[in-house]
Amino acid sequence: MSQPLSPLQIAESLTELWSPQVIAEVNDMYVKVAKTKGELLWHAHDHEDELFIILRGEFTLEFEDGSVTLREGEVFVVPRGRRHRPSAKEECLLLLFEQKSTAHTGSETTAATKSLADQLRWLNSR
Amino acid sequence: MSQPLSPLQIAESLTELWSPQVIAEVNDMYVKVAKTKGELLWHAHDHEDELFIILRGEFTLEFEDGSVTLREGEVFVVPRGRRHRPSAKEECLLLLFEQKSTAHTGSETTAATKSLADQLRWLNSR
Repeated sequence: MSQPLSPLQIAESLTELWSPQVIAEVNDMYVKVAKTKGELLWHAHDHEDELFIILRGEFTLEFEDGSVTLREGEVFVVPRGRRHRPSAKEECLLLLFEQKSTAHTGSETTAATKSLADQLRWLNSR
Repeated sequence: MSQPLSPLQIAESLTELWSPQVIAEVNDMYVKVAKTKGELLWHAHDHEDELFIILRGEFTLEFEDGSVTLREGEVFVVPRGRRHRPSAKEECLLLLFEQKSTAHTGSETTAATKSLADQLRWLNSR
């Protein structure tokens, strides 16, 4: 039988910033954790909503018309198509729910972009 | 702009046990919170996985071949088709991720079964 997971403990164990790791799948979505600090690039996911849950710390999502700051335990859904720039002044640990098809930095690709293979490393190493 | 939600605060505010309330949607899934204590009925969701995150307290999932007890902050996915009986000795607050099509008690229907309309009350009253 599979065992319960602690997303916080898994997120704490990550050594690379802005490198989400899949920890579980539910229907056609992935549950991911990430350790963040600093900024990721502006991007949008044209066809997929993206859900953030803050496990520890504070996380900011900038939009073209404003921003929200998320605190520990809070949930926020970025609707499909909405350009956003994620950032965290101090280290912040996150849980993400995304479609399996969701690309890390949406329609933008830079050196910061993580492939799906990258994001499956934790799961595949269990 | 929509505001961050605190699932824990919303779950605390619920007055009815075993009556999940949708707080957000992400693609074709609902995010729900619930306040639980005691037992729900044995059931299975034939075509949908179901994810539990424990916000506060302890939660037990019995299966035909064993059980798991989930603690605060832990995540567990019940795979589609697997019969389970959820229970909590003391009050337990949960976050759930389910397909929009997922019925509360799967293919079983009893007086304990909540309709989708029931589960949308919180969202519709905002």
